[in-house]
Amino acid sequence: MIKPVRWSGGQLHLLDQRKLPHSEEWVCCENVRQVSDAIREMVVRGAPAIGITAAYGMALAAQESFQQAESTSSNGSLRGGVDPKSQSYMDHLITAGSLLKRSRPTAVNLQWAVRTMLNKASQMISNNASGDEIRKGLASEAQALHEADVENNRRLGRHGAQLLKKGDRILTHCNAGALATGGFGTALGVVRSAHELQMNVSVYATETRPYLQGARLTAWELVRDGIPVSLIVDSAAGHLLRCGLVDAVVVGADRIAANGDTANKIGTYHLALAAAENSVPFYVAAPTSTLDIELPDGAGIEIEKREDNEVREIKGQQITPDMVRVENYAFDITPAKLITAVITEHGVVKPPFVKGLKKIHNASADQGFDDAECREGDTHA
Amino acid sequence: MIKPVRWSGGQLHLLDQRKLPHSEEWVCCENVRQVSDAIREMVVRGAPAIGITAAYGMALAAQESFQQAESTSSNGSLRGGVDPKSQSYMDHLITAGSLLKRSRPTAVNLQWAVRTMLNKASQMISNNASGDEIRKGLASEAQALHEADVENNRRLGRHGAQLLKKGDRILTHCNAGALATGGFGTALGVVRSAHELQMNVSVYATETRPYLQGARLTAWELVRDGIPVSLIVDSAAGHLLRCGLVDAVVVGADRIAANGDTANKIGTYHLALAAAENSVPFYVAAPTSTLDIELPDGAGIEIEKREDNEVREIKGQQITPDMVRVENYAFDITPAKLITAVITEHGVVKPPFVKGLKKIHNASADQGFDDAECREGDTHA
Repeated sequence: MIKPVRWSGGQLHLLDQRKLPHSEEWVCCENVRQVSDAIREMVVRGAPAIGITAAYGMALAAQESFQQAESTSSNGSLRGGVDPKSQSYMDHLITAGSLLKRSRPTAVNLQWAVRTMLNKASQMISNNASGDEIRKGLASEAQALHEADVENNRRLGRHGAQLLKKGDRILTHCNAGALATGGFGTALGVVRSAHELQMNVSVYATETRPYLQGARLTAWELVRDGIPVSLIVDSAAGHLLRCGLVDAVVVGADRIAANGDTANKIGTYHLALAAAENSVPFYVAAPTSTLDIELPDGAGIEIEKREDNEVREIKGQQITPDMVRVENYAFDITPAKLITAVITEHGVVKPPFVKGLKKIHNASADQGFDDAECREGDTHA
Repeated sequence: MIKPVRWSGGQLHLLDQRKLPHSEEWVCCENVRQVSDAIREMVVRGAPAIGITAAYGMALAAQESFQQAESTSSNGSLRGGVDPKSQSYMDHLITAGSLLKRSRPTAVNLQWAVRTMLNKASQMISNNASGDEIRKGLASEAQALHEADVENNRRLGRHGAQLLKKGDRILTHCNAGALATGGFGTALGVVRSAHELQMNVSVYATETRPYLQGARLTAWELVRDGIPVSLIVDSAAGHLLRCGLVDAVVVGADRIAANGDTANKIGTYHLALAAAENSVPFYVAAPTSTLDIELPDGAGIEIEKREDNEVREIKGQQITPDMVRVENYAFDITPAKLITAVITEHGVVKPPFVKGLKKIHNASADQGFDDAECREGDTHA
């Protein structure tokens, strides 16, 4: 299975998604600044994947504290490492977390991962853990989040596959695949599950300008797995939907507000409008870490604007006149009313979303949650 | 003024739009086959511009007949040229017309131009014109169509500008500008007219994958004319509309059916859906030569599929994995119900379109038509 994020020997290795599909190169991060740069520069992208990457970034921050202490210790001044009970220790982790959270603003998984890791550190400090124990504990916690993400994707995929029929032609946008997650994928997790169930599904992938995640990453993943895929320009999705060539739209998410409003890759809103107009179901597939239950609706979601050159240039070649201004919005908001269902690891949530998403959120906190069958406005497995 | 099509010394000169905005090169056509190739390979594109180009192509076909006759004549066999009354003369023109019509299927202006030129030839033959007279007559007719297109664009532009308010931010798609017409433009003709009236309008131009007519051509035209323009990826249009950043959408057309259903560049349908959802007016600007009054609705319009490499490669560089399949639809159909008004040289047509478009069509045949004020379901100037 494709795993775009790997932890090995106290280092974080990221598959450089800027170089795909033409070459498979890895970027190695040894400190939190390198992790933050890798997220901002889109070495790694996709809401769940950047969440996991940030968790490892926090593990590296704890390691930095420890190594710093070791180095100070070898100078004879501080034997046994920085005291984790000192304010400077926690300050260092909080600063590292802020740096990571600032690297990209829209995906809430990043904030969730940093918060989870800080809670873990805080808990260990309260329990009088040593610096070395915290270093190891945070590395284990990041790995646990990573493994849980893959497992959650698989559960989510199985729930989603139940919404599809044999032979369905699925339209997806951007890359919500193995590359966007710990492995397996959210929207493509649904596709992979259906494929494993021999449901004979096929995919239309939008190329996803400006960064071409569909043309470069989704196409690469699906071709590699032998799942039939056709690539289209983003603009062609409406035509396919209108011509009855699509049976379901399945996309990922960067943040889902309490009412179901969903931030996802720019252009998702167009797909949702065209799906609704043509009575094709529109599904959002995302783990509960993507849920921002504190946010009442999509109006509060910050939409990242990225640099002009992503639009001006393709593979380093300028395609526009010199003087033209560019507006490069990276995400848009799809209103909840256009969404047929949200597919999570705890089951499928249908409208009205407020109640169902709240239950999913609580389930996520309570690991004993059972994927029970639910009513409308509720979750159903 | 930018004129992408020029007739000089019995040759047709086309501004090579594949090379813009980086270099301004001209392609010279001396026979109908070269014209057909230039249209198919998109040296020239845009429904009105390819109509004009085809008209000149027919003039070149008449010239070929004449030159062939001259050359035969110099061999002593046929003094004074091929007899225009011979079946082979008209057959040559009809074959030339078929070749031109086959070069691209969706824009109806191509068929209209060929039909107009064949009618002119047929009329001259009935009036016992000589081969040389027909050669000159068809060249004059093509020039007249060309001049009329520019004049119609200006009239259309003035009608359209009346629909706008000072300071309007106009979203357009593809290139319906001077480069897509004889000069001046349809959608951009409306923008240019408003700019000339000092209405302080600005434009959002979609880049228009795969051929990047927006990024390369619309941006180039507007920057050149000093009209404020911001470039966005095609997928970002919905977000702008939803955020209230667009006051009107104005696009061109490749074919308008009798009920108002409109074929235009792939992605137009997405813009129309997002405009309707956000109560932003959606205007189609096109000369009456774009009207296919014989076609009851959009279902009968052939949608061109172009070659994969337009999507696979950008500026000769492959962006996709090798094995992925591509579907490259060049146009889509926007249903009449999503269109606020059709702007023509004879005035603005509002729904219900059947009556108003019929009147416009008749007006186009009857040059004495006066741009009278019209009621709903009618035209209004």
